[in-house]
Amino acid sequence: MLVFGVCILALALAAYFAKSMLKESKGSAKMQEVAGAIREGAEAFIKRQYTTIAIIALIIAVVLYAIYVLMGKGNLALTTSLAFLFGAFCSAIAGIVGMYVSVRANLRTAAAVGNSAAKATKIALHGGAVSALCIMSLSLLGVSITYYLLGADAQHTPFLIVGFGFGASLVALFAQLGGGIYTKAADIGADLVGKIEANIPEDDPRNPAVIADLVGDNVGDCAGRGADLFESTAAENIGAMILGVAIFSAFGANGVLFPLVGVALGVLASMLGIFFVQPKEHEDPMSALNRGYYATAIIAAVLFYFAINWMLGGNLFFYAAALLGIVLSVLFLWITQYYTDNKYRPVREITEASKTGAATNIIQGISVGFECVAAPVLAIAMGLLVSFWLGSNSGVPNGGLYATAVATIGMLATAAYVLAMDNFGPIADNAGGILEMSGAPASVRKNSDRLDAVGNTTKALTKGYAIGTAALAAFLLFSAYMDEVTQLTGQAFNIVNLSKVEVFVGAMLGAMLVYLFTSLAMRAVSKTAQYMVEEVRRQFKNKGILSGTVKPDYARCVDITTIGALKNMVLPGLLAILLPVAVGLLLKYEAMAAFLMVGTIAGILMALFLNNAGGAWDNAKKYIETGVLGGKGSEAHKAAVVGDMVGDPFKDTAGPSLHVLIKLLATVTLVLAPLFL
Amino acid sequence: MLVFGVCILALALAAYFAKSMLKESKGSAKMQEVAGAIREGAEAFIKRQYTTIAIIALIIAVVLYAIYVLMGKGNLALTTSLAFLFGAFCSAIAGIVGMYVSVRANLRTAAAVGNSAAKATKIALHGGAVSALCIMSLSLLGVSITYYLLGADAQHTPFLIVGFGFGASLVALFAQLGGGIYTKAADIGADLVGKIEANIPEDDPRNPAVIADLVGDNVGDCAGRGADLFESTAAENIGAMILGVAIFSAFGANGVLFPLVGVALGVLASMLGIFFVQPKEHEDPMSALNRGYYATAIIAAVLFYFAINWMLGGNLFFYAAALLGIVLSVLFLWITQYYTDNKYRPVREITEASKTGAATNIIQGISVGFECVAAPVLAIAMGLLVSFWLGSNSGVPNGGLYATAVATIGMLATAAYVLAMDNFGPIADNAGGILEMSGAPASVRKNSDRLDAVGNTTKALTKGYAIGTAALAAFLLFSAYMDEVTQLTGQAFNIVNLSKVEVFVGAMLGAMLVYLFTSLAMRAVSKTAQYMVEEVRRQFKNKGILSGTVKPDYARCVDITTIGALKNMVLPGLLAILLPVAVGLLLKYEAMAAFLMVGTIAGILMALFLNNAGGAWDNAKKYIETGVLGGKGSEAHKAAVVGDMVGDPFKDTAGPSLHVLIKLLATVTLVLAPLFL
Repeated sequence: MLVFGVCILALALAAYFAKSMLKESKGSAKMQEVAGAIREGAEAFIKRQYTTIAIIALIIAVVLYAIYVLMGKGNLALTTSLAFLFGAFCSAIAGIVGMYVSVRANLRTAAAVGNSAAKATKIALHGGAVSALCIMSLSLLGVSITYYLLGADAQHTPFLIVGFGFGASLVALFAQLGGGIYTKAADIGADLVGKIEANIPEDDPRNPAVIADLVGDNVGDCAGRGADLFESTAAENIGAMILGVAIFSAFGANGVLFPLVGVALGVLASMLGIFFVQPKEHEDPMSALNRGYYATAIIAAVLFYFAINWMLGGNLFFYAAALLGIVLSVLFLWITQYYTDNKYRPVREITEASKTGAATNIIQGISVGFECVAAPVLAIAMGLLVSFWLGSNSGVPNGGLYATAVATIGMLATAAYVLAMDNFGPIADNAGGILEMSGAPASVRKNSDRLDAVGNTTKALTKGYAIGTAALAAFLLFSAYMDEVTQLTGQAFNIVNLSKVEVFVGAMLGAMLVYLFTSLAMRAVSKTAQYMVEEVRRQFKNKGILSGTVKPDYARCVDITTIGALKNMVLPGLLAILLPVAVGLLLKYEAMAAFLMVGTIAGILMALFLNNAGGAWDNAKKYIETGVLGGKGSEAHKAAVVGDMVGDPFKDTAGPSLHVLIKLLATVTLVLAPLFL
Repeated sequence: MLVFGVCILALALAAYFAKSMLKESKGSAKMQEVAGAIREGAEAFIKRQYTTIAIIALIIAVVLYAIYVLMGKGNLALTTSLAFLFGAFCSAIAGIVGMYVSVRANLRTAAAVGNSAAKATKIALHGGAVSALCIMSLSLLGVSITYYLLGADAQHTPFLIVGFGFGASLVALFAQLGGGIYTKAADIGADLVGKIEANIPEDDPRNPAVIADLVGDNVGDCAGRGADLFESTAAENIGAMILGVAIFSAFGANGVLFPLVGVALGVLASMLGIFFVQPKEHEDPMSALNRGYYATAIIAAVLFYFAINWMLGGNLFFYAAALLGIVLSVLFLWITQYYTDNKYRPVREITEASKTGAATNIIQGISVGFECVAAPVLAIAMGLLVSFWLGSNSGVPNGGLYATAVATIGMLATAAYVLAMDNFGPIADNAGGILEMSGAPASVRKNSDRLDAVGNTTKALTKGYAIGTAALAAFLLFSAYMDEVTQLTGQAFNIVNLSKVEVFVGAMLGAMLVYLFTSLAMRAVSKTAQYMVEEVRRQFKNKGILSGTVKPDYARCVDITTIGALKNMVLPGLLAILLPVAVGLLLKYEAMAAFLMVGTIAGILMALFLNNAGGAWDNAKKYIETGVLGGKGSEAHKAAVVGDMVGDPFKDTAGPSLHVLIKLLATVTLVLAPLFL
């Protein structure tokens, strides 16, 4: 009831934010024209993308049904397939709603920023919050409804709802891949021909690729990350509920339902946190956003105390685990900030290395990227060891694993707020683009640049947060998989013995998948960007476009990127689904567990590398643009531009897609576990 | 006896090659002057490097002694420390001899290449063979002597000689790190200021860094890779002997001694193979080298048949495993060739991507690098699964693991030959540099360029081979570790349960070590290159140097790089030793096993990525230099030069150091196992 109540409250608040945002001024006709083009492009992409995803999802649902029937588990066939489709549907709805709002909030933010940066900050944040609240509450509602429809039997139903998680993962994978390929292919295509060959500035209206680039911010950053965190929440809830079954003797159904309640309270805390963001006119917008974040974290900590008192017998060990999760989320934001902010050593070193050219900039960036995995891994290691230790000392049988689940719930408590901040990024970025293209005066641009810079920071932070939650959630998903195999075979499966040859081979293949998937995702960006480069070059042959007398054909660029991105997302997507199935079928369930675990470790490290190296390159370039080392146009800047471009598919395509891959691996194995016995 | 006989034969052949090589013409006075400078620089570096390593080794020996005494294992303290020092000493001797010959063979090759490319090929190969044969036979002799000195008790002595392997690993780590940092810092420093800033060609005598660059080829490629394969052989022999104890019931001492005999026969096969290389004058030198390689492989296959008949009861399952190992070594060479040769898709794609600039070149190269891990991992997976299956069906109890050891021995059978080919590379490269610097005519340069190109290929192939053997050897080293723990505790340790929290954390930290180590190795190159850049810039301020009237101060550059490389190798080296110890102490032996296993998986993948991406970038640049896409000086070439420079520390510092790291992890855990109980 509490969960449903919070979800309805969150949806109501989202509706209120959406309504009041839509009432804001829409700016000049020119601005509306640009925003209209972005909106149309984004909506066209989303329509086609979700049509493609729907077809893939339907095929998989049928295959899933057939597999379950063939395995003699006909009784589960229909529920699993339907839960799968329902998960996919909820995730898609969440993505579509978020997109609907963000392509409208960008215009209102652009219109407001000339008068008041504070007001524009609020509009962009509330726009982002609409999508964040929809995503979190639809994820929660989806899992809860599935749970109740399938019988709400605390000891058995959790195993039946794994299909929902798989559906959510599937949509997330393709949404993130397709969006990620789109956004970076458009960006690289626009930069290669526009900035480098034709020497015109970023977001210049003469560049035919510029609308596609702005569309990309929405479909990659908004829709992609939304689907990612939708899935994190769903997968984490399902995994934690399965672990809850193991401590049924201590807390009964409460242990199973606590994850849902915990996440719901997190959504509540985030709603309150958003109201703490009342930016003052001359304040750095980032300080206002940070205030809201800390408020959310503190409110969540208080609410968790009452929830644990109510549901888990006030066991302080579990409360400590929840607090640990909240602390971890703060820690992840700090670490990400250290590695990607120009105030600290890593970005400064990359900046310095740009003096001797592109090669040293790249070497330094890669070195920073490899280095940056250490702190988050230590944080995760600490989080797992301490929460497990707390749980083992809680006096509850099997409490150790459950405490890692509680820590994960704690870490997810601020998810809705973080997601709202994340969506702030592309909205602010788009607002800047709209202003640039509609020829706004420099003073207005300066305000919007400030917002844009803050948006870049929030986007980077969210990725750090997302990988942290994925890593912590992964461990409980492994355990859920082992519980499920135990339930299916009736024999305790609690050993994944890495010293067996086939298990070791499974582990090696899991790590290999991560490398191969990353390669394919990056290659997809290159290929799609290539179409774009050719199209922009073709259009530039018309001299009128560069001189500004002829309007370029934006729509064609949008179209080409859409088709390219959708075509090129299929191969990496299928690899991510089919390789685990093949390994599971050939090497069986124990090797599959190792595949999952070591694949996850490799995925976490690779994602951290890709995200942080990309973010650091981006900010090294931006730092030089503030005037350091000769500023824009200097040799150092040219070197830094190369680094930034290399980092683009790292941080916005391959990295975020890996977050999703990690969770997809877990949900695939959960759903197909019967096949691997 | 056979082993000693083969080793003495090999050393005699090495002496013969060395003697006849030294008798060859030494060319003009100018050439001798250049070669003299290289020799002096290399010898100065080696002297200082081995002094540093000796100090570190002595400290570790004392610490080792103290640890064993404090653990109440005083009876093992002295033997372990002495075996450690003996391993380090043998490895150092092998490295020094190899270096002594290669800095002399380069001059003879340069002198011969004008008259006959075929003769030059032979000189370079025989020069390489001296060092290869010394390394392999010293490694074998070292292990054998230690085994006999420590009692030659087939059931117990194998556990006592682990110290030898640790000593070899330690020297290998620092030799490869120091040499790798030296070679790439010199190369990048020379290129950045010479090629890019001052616009003078490669190996131009006006560049003060050019001698340091040529010295680097010797200390990095020759000495480094030699130490690497010395260690591979030693570690593999020790690991396989320990596994031999487990099948004592079937074959007695023969099972324990077979690894030594197998490797000795491989050395014998390689010696014969070298005589198959009789290049014709207008033949591609690579075909001649390939002929020798296949001859070695076939001879080894025949010799193994007799050895298995004699020692392992003619069990055909083990013979099949040995053949599988030989086939795997060929497979690894093919895969490496596919990914780094300009005839195939990967290099072609990178070349094509250079058209749109450095950023797309880098993105494509990284994408190729990530892709290229798939085929080797599948080959290793296949090798492990099939050889284990063969062994399990051999009718010998515990035969599965032993068969993986036999496959590894099969893979190492061609090691001496491969190493001779590898050393061919820097000798040919140096010969080209000597000719360029002494102003040889273009026709001679053309011949030497052909040799240089072949040398680049053999260097790349060896890295592929080295990582393959390291990967296969790693699995048997894990098993040896588990056998050792079993022997120490008296309780069977045969489960590494990845689903335990602390074991999972160990696994995660193992993978993290690989990333952090790679980062530090790359950073060491950047830092050292920076000293070089400053020095070359300082020298160029003297206008006379660039106009060719003043001779630059080569020695100062050599000196600066030497000090920089030795200083900067310490941090990554210590990390590689101390992190495993810390993890083992804190999380104990089972987590340590996971640390080792997953660290190895991560290391293999990362090394493959680094080596092959680096090799592919290098060859894409060389392919453009043949005239493709506008040839030298075109925009595409400039982009490809950036890629090549980024690839340098990948393929010549971090990648090869990771091979060593993998084996060091194994030997550290073997030696310190008593600490982790």
